[in-house]
Amino acid sequence: MEEKEISQAVISRLPRYFRYLGELKDRGVERISSQDLSRLMHVTASQIRQDFNNFGGFGQQGYGYNVTYLYDEIGKILGLDRQHNFVIIGAGNLGRALGNYMNFERRGFILKGMFDRDPELIGRRVRDVSVMPMEELESFIRENDIDIAVLTIPKEGAVSVAERLGKTQIRAIWNFAHVDLNVPEGVQVENVHLSDSLMKLSYNINRYRNEQM
Amino acid sequence: MEEKEISQAVISRLPRYFRYLGELKDRGVERISSQDLSRLMHVTASQIRQDFNNFGGFGQQGYGYNVTYLYDEIGKILGLDRQHNFVIIGAGNLGRALGNYMNFERRGFILKGMFDRDPELIGRRVRDVSVMPMEELESFIRENDIDIAVLTIPKEGAVSVAERLGKTQIRAIWNFAHVDLNVPEGVQVENVHLSDSLMKLSYNINRYRNEQM
Repeated sequence: MEEKEISQAVISRLPRYFRYLGELKDRGVERISSQDLSRLMHVTASQIRQDFNNFGGFGQQGYGYNVTYLYDEIGKILGLDRQHNFVIIGAGNLGRALGNYMNFERRGFILKGMFDRDPELIGRRVRDVSVMPMEELESFIRENDIDIAVLTIPKEGAVSVAERLGKTQIRAIWNFAHVDLNVPEGVQVENVHLSDSLMKLSYNINRYRNEQM
Repeated sequence: MEEKEISQAVISRLPRYFRYLGELKDRGVERISSQDLSRLMHVTASQIRQDFNNFGGFGQQGYGYNVTYLYDEIGKILGLDRQHNFVIIGAGNLGRALGNYMNFERRGFILKGMFDRDPELIGRRVRDVSVMPMEELESFIRENDIDIAVLTIPKEGAVSVAERLGKTQIRAIWNFAHVDLNVPEGVQVENVHLSDSLMKLSYNINRYRNEQM
């Protein structure tokens, strides 16, 4: 597939398109115009057309988009036509919550292993995976074709674990630790800083309150 | 506090400044130049100055920023000088993970109650809070000065719960359900769509792989 460089802002919107198209598909909708999609998603039709033009446009304007085709194409762009094996590092509440989340599997993200340094958690099961000690991380990644590591450990340990991961074949870190990670080029990092998100919420509460005064 | 309209992009960066300044403060650093902050955070010094100019600049250029002052001011802008009481709706793994996360409390976000519709979960304790039935949601919010509701339930139930919340005094919904919510004006919504984040990661893996071929 040939692509020009697409901005991360456009990329960030693709999963949302994918989600809405999946729901339309499930409801048996075959075609949708950019106007109707615009109303449904509360974004402008011109935004939709601009976003899709980054990927060649996906279909005739005026006639509308073929929902299944568009869904499949966006899925391919998102890499969802491949299976991604992942491990979770940190078997606390958050790690277990993510491990139990079946929707990831539907999208081709397969939980293969969990790791923790706490001896009390070793051997515990999350679905059909049991928690392993940190010593086995590198060999497990090598032997099980793992390409994503999910980091759900406190920030103190995250930096050194990310260094270890950087020396493996891993292609991406989904980072829930509240710290920015340094990784080698070629390792993608997607941060989910929950506290940051909560602070943004707090800002917006505060701003709205001030506006009303 | 008087403010012009600040873009959400700037707002999104404030928690990260706050986090770095908090770490500098903990290390006893008293002053920092925008150049040093720039190197530490891997953003340009001009970006930092532009961002801070939205809020009046926070101090003399050349002389550097007073770390504690800047930390406190950004904290105030983020509304972290007030206490926010919150409830979690959905006492599954993710809800319990968030309920157990002590860092929120340090920032003034206090867990007051948890709710679930599953009778098996009612009465279970998360720290010093026990899970209540959904029927008690509105009265609990009214009587406990709750301003944030965290939604950690499947998307099927999230829309109707958000409607119920829209009729209460709640000021914000922190939404982990994989669906976009419609709420009355004045209710802030901050979405954490974990699947979207994972898909973005998958896109970046895929793009990098294609570039290497």
